[in-house]
Amino acid sequence: MSELDVLLFGEIDPPQRLLMGPGPVNAHPRVLRAMSADLLGQFDPEMTGYMEQVMALYRPLFGTENRWTFLVNGTARAGIEASLISLVEPGDTVLVIDFGRFGLLLKEILQRIGARVVSVEAAWGEVVPLDAIAAAIERYAPKVVATVHGDTSTTMAQPLDGLGAIVRAAGAFSYVDATATIGGIAIAADRWSIDVVTGGLQKCLSGPSGSAPITVSDRAAERILARRHVEGGIRRADIVDGTGPRIASNYFDLAMVMDYWSEKRLNHHTEATTMLYGARECARVALAEGLDARFARHARAGAAVVAGARAMGLAVFGDDRHRMTNVTGMNIPGGIDGEAVRRWMREDFEIEIGTAFGPLAGRIWRIGAMGYNAMKHKVAITMSALETVLRAEGFACPPGAGVDAALAAWDTAP
Amino acid sequence: MSELDVLLFGEIDPPQRLLMGPGPVNAHPRVLRAMSADLLGQFDPEMTGYMEQVMALYRPLFGTENRWTFLVNGTARAGIEASLISLVEPGDTVLVIDFGRFGLLLKEILQRIGARVVSVEAAWGEVVPLDAIAAAIERYAPKVVATVHGDTSTTMAQPLDGLGAIVRAAGAFSYVDATATIGGIAIAADRWSIDVVTGGLQKCLSGPSGSAPITVSDRAAERILARRHVEGGIRRADIVDGTGPRIASNYFDLAMVMDYWSEKRLNHHTEATTMLYGARECARVALAEGLDARFARHARAGAAVVAGARAMGLAVFGDDRHRMTNVTGMNIPGGIDGEAVRRWMREDFEIEIGTAFGPLAGRIWRIGAMGYNAMKHKVAITMSALETVLRAEGFACPPGAGVDAALAAWDTAP
Repeated sequence: MSELDVLLFGEIDPPQRLLMGPGPVNAHPRVLRAMSADLLGQFDPEMTGYMEQVMALYRPLFGTENRWTFLVNGTARAGIEASLISLVEPGDTVLVIDFGRFGLLLKEILQRIGARVVSVEAAWGEVVPLDAIAAAIERYAPKVVATVHGDTSTTMAQPLDGLGAIVRAAGAFSYVDATATIGGIAIAADRWSIDVVTGGLQKCLSGPSGSAPITVSDRAAERILARRHVEGGIRRADIVDGTGPRIASNYFDLAMVMDYWSEKRLNHHTEATTMLYGARECARVALAEGLDARFARHARAGAAVVAGARAMGLAVFGDDRHRMTNVTGMNIPGGIDGEAVRRWMREDFEIEIGTAFGPLAGRIWRIGAMGYNAMKHKVAITMSALETVLRAEGFACPPGAGVDAALAAWDTAP
Repeated sequence: MSELDVLLFGEIDPPQRLLMGPGPVNAHPRVLRAMSADLLGQFDPEMTGYMEQVMALYRPLFGTENRWTFLVNGTARAGIEASLISLVEPGDTVLVIDFGRFGLLLKEILQRIGARVVSVEAAWGEVVPLDAIAAAIERYAPKVVATVHGDTSTTMAQPLDGLGAIVRAAGAFSYVDATATIGGIAIAADRWSIDVVTGGLQKCLSGPSGSAPITVSDRAAERILARRHVEGGIRRADIVDGTGPRIASNYFDLAMVMDYWSEKRLNHHTEATTMLYGARECARVALAEGLDARFARHARAGAAVVAGARAMGLAVFGDDRHRMTNVTGMNIPGGIDGEAVRRWMREDFEIEIGTAFGPLAGRIWRIGAMGYNAMKHKVAITMSALETVLRAEGFACPPGAGVDAALAAWDTAP
């Protein structure tokens, strides 16, 4: 390809598509505007000031007073791996609460970092009862217990109240992947006594993927800092290595990352400044709305999608008692081509809805209504479009019932 | 802190500072504008189209026809670690060409991932001769040879022409960290027969940190794909695991990342869309200028900084024959407080110049002139400001000599 051809790719100009899948969703315009600010040197006082602000802004989102609340520079998955590789020592037994694809991801990461992985499982569409978790902790005596909060693959939200207390009573540490819930469903890291929680921007916070907020309890930080090993070339007299086994990643070494985010300002990676500006604005937007109001808005959106789907005659997937408010699964009716429906939705309505993974591939659609898209009009538009496409595909669906039910549910949700 | 206090942090509003340190530098405005576009679903045809364009756009920047040219989602350091952990198997002998802080970083990462690390070293301010590298390969029979291209800690650029041929003749693989040179100093991955090269956006490409372009030769891709292990929950009949040892990271598993960037579109992380838009625009800006013109502009900028520093009476650090064009080190004169000078530069002129690491901390300043800042007027402004501050700090410096020499060198550079 010649350089001239390359230039012909032209300006970035994505279609104005409504992203009603399991994420990413549309970015809040304030977030994109904040990201258009110019860069700063990474140790300039204004930059370190912004870093301090980010730490403060994410504490309420995680429901914590943890000093160590900061960003991992990568997608949500980077936050997960950084947490596990820094918290888990090779050979440690780790109990994974596995109720979907992202539970499997936790196992996968843990196997690669040399943990002994055990699990307590639920079928896709269900969650794991607390007493089953307690029994598994009793049985396996894990050093770390890891779970997903809301698993978008199954649309289930694992109840976490009480988990941390059991884990700490057993002398262990807890990790929660809250990528799909942060900013949309309440997280109470302190009240739940969870040690490490990570999130992402691209779901309920309506930012771009690429930065992973994290919070670390003091007791977990102590364990991690005991594994500190400052790299050659930047060693300093005021930063002493720990005595624990060295963390098997440099990039994901939370001990060094915490030293970077502390007043020590130990040089590590070059902070992803633009993503930090975006993460900061995501949090400001969420806190300005008020977290309780925001969670209620997501609950209305979820209730509306569920009611709309059922009124159209679609069976909603999974356990009603533990449904995430921001992503809803619904069975693809027999005889309907799920991918054809998604394509029609995209081509005629510029609306994206989600497909599914693994055992649910081809069996359910997933509709997300989160962040900037957990809006009455966006849910209504999506339900109307879905109905139109379903009727065109030959599914007998009472005209107008879905959107009417969705609007009614939005208005009457508690 | 109350939520109200949090809101009082206010809008993002960094000072308009000229970043003439070793990076990050100021972003090109076109890059920030491109990043303000809304998000897309990660498998929407427009998104995968943009991914294909990014692959094409980065091939000329790396000087390669490699199919596997894509982005790692993280800072430049993420690209380094992903390359090494995917290329190196535990127990492999790896030869590091070590001539500065970022050579030490390569060693550090390699130690953590279980390599047997050997090295061939140069003093800070020098590079390693090719025959010394050849002798070390002969002596250690490494499986992988890793080096930095331009090490900003010492401002030296390691010559790479001929390296790949020696490495391949020995049956080994080569890795080059080109974070600080990509888009500013020529990289010829194919002509140099280098197997894996990674970069970053925040230096000569004038983008934000947070995305790491990478290119992988077919022979390296074959080695990496032989270690493929698709995670549970997304296994597919058309993607078969390899027989090699599993890569010890999920996030940095280039086999899965390549499957994500191929027509297989295997789900892995959620691509950092906004950073991808930025990376795409960085490359378009560079290719529109023309790479040869761009490299010449960086050479003029480097010559101007060197001439300006010398005319002010500052000794320039390191070997003239192997100096990077985009970052220049100069000795802090005896009796001058280097940090006070940097503070004055920032406070009175809104110009950032760099400090140094390790053995050079407190001994040199580093001035970068790269990407959007490798401009005649920005170099001139910086030289004038530095002279003013140096005189105020008591350094006897002929008035006007630095800026005059810098301008003259810019105009006469070959």
